Amino acid sequence: MTRRTPSGEDEIIARYFRPLAKHPAALGLIDDCAALTPAAGSDLVLKTDAIVGGVHFFPDDPADKVAQKALRVNLSDLAAKGAKPEGFLLALALPKETEAGWLKAFARGLGKDAEAFGCPLLGGDTDRTPGPITIAITAFGTLPRGGMVLRSGAKPGDRVMVTGTIGDAALGLVLRQDGAAAARWELSRREAAHLGERYLVPQPRNVIAEALRQYASAAMDVSDGLVGDFTKLCAASGASAEIDAMRVPLSDGGRRAIAAEPALRERVLTGGDDYEVVCTVPPKKLAQFQAAVAKTGVPLVEIGVITKGTAPPRFLDGSGKALTFKRLSFSHF
Amino acid sequence: MTRRTPSGEDEIIARYFRPLAKHPAALGLIDDCAALTPAAGSDLVLKTDAIVGGVHFFPDDPADKVAQKALRVNLSDLAAKGAKPEGFLLALALPKETEAGWLKAFARGLGKDAEAFGCPLLGGDTDRTPGPITIAITAFGTLPRGGMVLRSGAKPGDRVMVTGTIGDAALGLVLRQDGAAAARWELSRREAAHLGERYLVPQPRNVIAEALRQYASAAMDVSDGLVGDFTKLCAASGASAEIDAMRVPLSDGGRRAIAAEPALRERVLTGGDDYEVVCTVPPKKLAQFQAAVAKTGVPLVEIGVITKGTAPPRFLDGSGKALTFKRLSFSHF
Repeated sequence: MTRRTPSGEDEIIARYFRPLAKHPAALGLIDDCAALTPAAGSDLVLKTDAIVGGVHFFPDDPADKVAQKALRVNLSDLAAKGAKPEGFLLALALPKETEAGWLKAFARGLGKDAEAFGCPLLGGDTDRTPGPITIAITAFGTLPRGGMVLRSGAKPGDRVMVTGTIGDAALGLVLRQDGAAAARWELSRREAAHLGERYLVPQPRNVIAEALRQYASAAMDVSDGLVGDFTKLCAASGASAEIDAMRVPLSDGGRRAIAAEPALRERVLTGGDDYEVVCTVPPKKLAQFQAAVAKTGVPLVEIGVITKGTAPPRFLDGSGKALTFKRLSFSHF
Repeated sequence: MTRRTPSGEDEIIARYFRPLAKHPAALGLIDDCAALTPAAGSDLVLKTDAIVGGVHFFPDDPADKVAQKALRVNLSDLAAKGAKPEGFLLALALPKETEAGWLKAFARGLGKDAEAFGCPLLGGDTDRTPGPITIAITAFGTLPRGGMVLRSGAKPGDRVMVTGTIGDAALGLVLRQDGAAAARWELSRREAAHLGERYLVPQPRNVIAEALRQYASAAMDVSDGLVGDFTKLCAASGASAEIDAMRVPLSDGGRRAIAAEPALRERVLTGGDDYEVVCTVPPKKLAQFQAAVAKTGVPLVEIGVITKGTAPPRFLDGSGKALTFKRLSFSHF
C-alpha cells in the first residue's frame, strides 16, 4: 500500500499557488499543463522574462515586491504591444534555505497583481537551485488578429511619445548602492522614496494598451534604457529620429538629481528598469491617441519626431547639439 | 550621435538564437513579444518547466544534450496531453564564465530538437546569474478545442498502459554518482551506456500524442517516478488501481541491475526522469489504441487496471502482495 505523502513541491503548490489559480484554464494546477481557449479571431502575444536575485533585485527586497516586479516586467511588454493580459506561467527556482514566510509574501504579492492586472496564474514549476532565487514568468496576452503593435512600424513624420517619467528606477538603484547619494542630490525624503519605489516595483502601462493598439504605429516598453531601446525601435523600423532630450519627462527627484550632478543625465537616458512605453504615432492620429491616454490618467509627453534614413536617432541637448553616450543601454552582461 | 553597439545579450541572441527563430510568430526575435495565430477551433496547451545546473543536470554534461533535455521535458508534457507542439520560449540565465563554445553547442542541440519535434523557438530572454545555468522553457501545443487529455478522466475498468521502459534514467543517475555500480550490477558496456543516455536525454513520446488524444481517458508523463505520478493520476480521477509491478517494462540494463540488487526495484518504480507516458484506456478502445501506437514503433505495455474507490493504487509483487515504498516520487525538495 502506498501513502499519499505530498512532496515538498506539491506542498508549496497546494499551499501558496493553488489559491491564485482561479482561471479555468489552470485546471486548479492539478494537471500537467494549462489549456487556454483563445477567443475566435484573436492572436496570442507571448513573452517570457526572468528576474534573478542579486542581478535584478536585492536578496533583501520584500518578497511581495519581488513577485510584483517579476510579473510586471512581463505585463509591461504586453502593454506596449497593445495586448490584453490573459494569464501567466511561473517557473520558480528556490534555494533550500527559502523560508515559508518569504513564499507566503511572494504568493501574496503575485496574487495581488494577478487580480489587479486581470492576469491569473495558469500553471508553473517549482525547483530547487543552489543559486539565487530565480523567477521566470511567461505571460500571455490577446488582441485581434494581426493587431500587435510592432517595433517596426514607425514612419517618418510620426511623433515620438513617452509615458510617465524616465530614469527614476536607474536613480533608485544608485540610491540603494550609494547611501550618500540622496544627501548629495539634495532629495527630499519623498523624492528619495519615490525613486526607490520605482526601482523596487515598476508600474506597467497596461491601461493604455488599447490606445496603443488603435493609434500607435510602433511601440516598445523601455526596460533597458530609453536611448538604447528607442535606437532598436528605429533600427527595426528602418528609420531615424530627432529627440529633444530636454523634453524627456523627469520626476521631481530625477530633475533634482540631474541639477546636482549633470552627468546623471546619461544614466537617466540610458539606465534600465523604467517600464514606461515609448511609441510613435502618425500626426493625424495624435489627438485621438492623446485623448485616449488622458482618460487613463497616464502622463504622456511628445519628445521628438521620426525622420528618414537609417542613422541612429539623435538625442539633442538644449542647444540643438547631439548628445553622445558611453553606452546606450543597461546590460547585465 | 549614438553608436549602435550591441550589448552582450543582443549579441548572444543574434549569434546563437536568431537562426533558430524560423517561425513567423517569432518575428526574427527583433520584437518584444511573439505573436501566435492559433488555428480556429483549437486550444492552446501551455507548459513551463525549468532545469537547473547541479540539480537536473551535471555542470559537465554536453551543452547540446542539456538543451535537448530542457526542451524535451516540456515536449513530454505536451505529448501526454495529446497536443501537437507549436513552439517555445526560452528564459536562459547564464553565469558570467559561460563560454562561447558552450552557447554554440547549446544552440545547436536546441535547434536540432526544435526541427525534429516541429517546435520552433518563438522568443526568449537571456540573463546573467551568479548561480548555475538555469534554463526555463515554456512550450505551447495545440489540439482541437476541449481535447486535452487530463489526469482526471480515468474510470474503473480502464486499462493502465505505460510506454517504453521505466527506471532507466534513475539508474543512469546512480551510475553517474557511483563509479562502482556498473560492475556491481554486472552491466554490459552497452547496457551501462543506455542507462546513462536515458538520464542525459529523455525521449519524449510526441509521436503517440494523437493516439492518446483519440483513445486515452487519462494520461500524464512520468517525470517524478511512476508510483508517485500514477498515484496523482488516480487521485485526480477519484479512482484507485491495481498494478502488476512485475509487468512494469524494464530495459535489459534495468532488469540486470534489479537482479543484482533487488532493492533497486523501488528506485526504478519511484525514481524520476523517465519521460514515458502512463495512461488509461477504456477496454473497448484498447485495440485501436494499441494499433495506433504500434504504428509509431513506441513500445507499449499493459500494467494494470483502474478500480473503484479512492485508495491509492496498489503495486503488486509477483505473489499478489502490495509493495510498500519509502517514498513515492523523486523530489529535489
